[in-house]
Amino acid sequence: MTTRPPAGAEAPDQARPLALSMGDPAGIGLDIALTAWHQRAEYALPPFVLFGDAAPLASRAHALGFGALPVEIVSDLREAADIFATRFPVYPVACPVPVVPGKPDPANAPAVIGAIEAAVEAVRSGAARAVVTNPIAKAVLKAHGFPHPGHTEFLGALAETRFGASNVKPVMLLASRELSVVPLTIHIPLASVPAAISKEAIEETARILHRALNVDFGIPEPRIAITGLNPHAGEQGTMGDEDERIVAPAIAALAREGLAVTGPHPADTLFHAAARDTYDAVLAMYHDQALIPIKTLAFDTGVNVTLGLPFVRTSPDHGTAFSIAGTGAARATSLIEALKYADAIATRRESAKRRESANR
Amino acid sequence: MTTRPPAGAEAPDQARPLALSMGDPAGIGLDIALTAWHQRAEYALPPFVLFGDAAPLASRAHALGFGALPVEIVSDLREAADIFATRFPVYPVACPVPVVPGKPDPANAPAVIGAIEAAVEAVRSGAARAVVTNPIAKAVLKAHGFPHPGHTEFLGALAETRFGASNVKPVMLLASRELSVVPLTIHIPLASVPAAISKEAIEETARILHRALNVDFGIPEPRIAITGLNPHAGEQGTMGDEDERIVAPAIAALAREGLAVTGPHPADTLFHAAARDTYDAVLAMYHDQALIPIKTLAFDTGVNVTLGLPFVRTSPDHGTAFSIAGTGAARATSLIEALKYADAIATRRESAKRRESANR
Repeated sequence: MTTRPPAGAEAPDQARPLALSMGDPAGIGLDIALTAWHQRAEYALPPFVLFGDAAPLASRAHALGFGALPVEIVSDLREAADIFATRFPVYPVACPVPVVPGKPDPANAPAVIGAIEAAVEAVRSGAARAVVTNPIAKAVLKAHGFPHPGHTEFLGALAETRFGASNVKPVMLLASRELSVVPLTIHIPLASVPAAISKEAIEETARILHRALNVDFGIPEPRIAITGLNPHAGEQGTMGDEDERIVAPAIAALAREGLAVTGPHPADTLFHAAARDTYDAVLAMYHDQALIPIKTLAFDTGVNVTLGLPFVRTSPDHGTAFSIAGTGAARATSLIEALKYADAIATRRESAKRRESANR
Repeated sequence: MTTRPPAGAEAPDQARPLALSMGDPAGIGLDIALTAWHQRAEYALPPFVLFGDAAPLASRAHALGFGALPVEIVSDLREAADIFATRFPVYPVACPVPVVPGKPDPANAPAVIGAIEAAVEAVRSGAARAVVTNPIAKAVLKAHGFPHPGHTEFLGALAETRFGASNVKPVMLLASRELSVVPLTIHIPLASVPAAISKEAIEETARILHRALNVDFGIPEPRIAITGLNPHAGEQGTMGDEDERIVAPAIAALAREGLAVTGPHPADTLFHAAARDTYDAVLAMYHDQALIPIKTLAFDTGVNVTLGLPFVRTSPDHGTAFSIAGTGAARATSLIEALKYADAIATRRESAKRRESANR
């Protein structure tokens, strides 16, 4: 598990790569990283460096029919952008035991975790521009004593320990060209949702979303549509009182702050094409209310963007898909979008930082 | 309020019209009925008779720029099919007070209710083939003492009082060319959903859906996908136990009966194009879980089909839209689909009945 900062922090923006963690090497992370690299010209992808083990990567390239992979181990990330056109840059994080596609091994958990830590560290040091994470399997890492419910929470913890940030509240934005949504509550039972939504949480999350749409997505006056919790947003309190008691007051408070928020909207009529023209992102109350529409509209191209962190992090919006690892069936579209989003967001933050410096 | 059975019960199938109730005459029901009739040739619509008041219909035709409407009052529904090509057939149900578009008047509630009753009666007598209902406003009817939560429950009551049916359990199917879904629970607070789902309700609803897909939609072996209640269908009980405790056993019981049911499926990944190829309809656990995907995919063309009734009933999948009544902004696409679905379902039931008679 390496946390040593890679060299290259002093490079200019455009020469710095994205740091792509390998994810669980028995999953499709290596497959889609290989496919993305092979399609780098077609999709005009920004240079990225895989933080992980080159050996399973090279053997996966053979399994997928890509033949001999021109891997280049880089210790100075400044080299990555130059070599990216012809070689696949890898920042080495070794797996303790051999990787078998589709058969995750908890013995490799330290490398999975170490790759994430090293990627974050590369961004902290300035050597890389943004973190893009490949899927991990919580159950596999948990067996190794990984205490976090998932990637997002782990990155939140790293933001505090590595960046010295405090009160980090990571917010999951699912972004696509068709629709962008934030679920207020995520991986909790449906029965726990009504008690878990609060005026404070809605306000805090909407502010983080507003700031991200403004700074990271370059929208001068972001329009946020907020769903109601109940069918028809409660229809004047006749189907649940949370929309009148919690959601509406939160929206009123946000509007008073000057945010362009609307709602509570009935969720069923908020996601058709004409409705989507009326906002830039939706803040939904729970997992399926947010994820059903985006996965219906953009199943292969959704990107998970973590807001509220002191660094840029995106990831493909799918899991390890162990059952198809190494078979060639995995589609790299979501990772390709994740790389593009990371590049675009990092570019906007870099510009904002330059403007701030210039104004000082 | 007329409940007298219209004449025409002895006509052959193809000569019998659909019975279209006017809905709230201050809403868009008259607008979309007019648009549908004017597009009858373009969409090859089956003949329908409007059960309602011809005076506001004719004046709405002027408001919408259709000019003088060739209305024909029919008391014998056998005439309707013949005149439909050249005149707009109306079975008269008079409004007590003048109709103002956009301004619903509880004084007209008896005519709104009477039109539904007369349409149902026409189907009971055999004079009409199916009921298609235009939108009503529950609040307006409630002011007049209408005791039912909505159309569907009222039709369920009529099935018992007029058809002598017992234990009627109307089931709402939302159908479209893209997706068909049934919400197990509908207009209740989200907080009440977990306690409202039961193994019995899932089994009973799935059986009604199976039968409808088979008989009404002509699918020999209907495939029904059933959602989980919780995110990721509970992920092995780690996010709520209802999916393991209630949904999965119901699915197992239905499978033992020979139904092609699958699930509990995570709802978020069940509605993209490739997933939709794997089933004929979805049984979802609650309102937004069912309505978000269909309204996202088929906002203008969804049709509400009431299953479990002794007669065919469809309706457009939208409300009275008072604010745009008489303006020309209302789209008739959903009503046109509702007319086509009613025709197709009635045709299949008629064939099934003929086959049954032949086999006796």
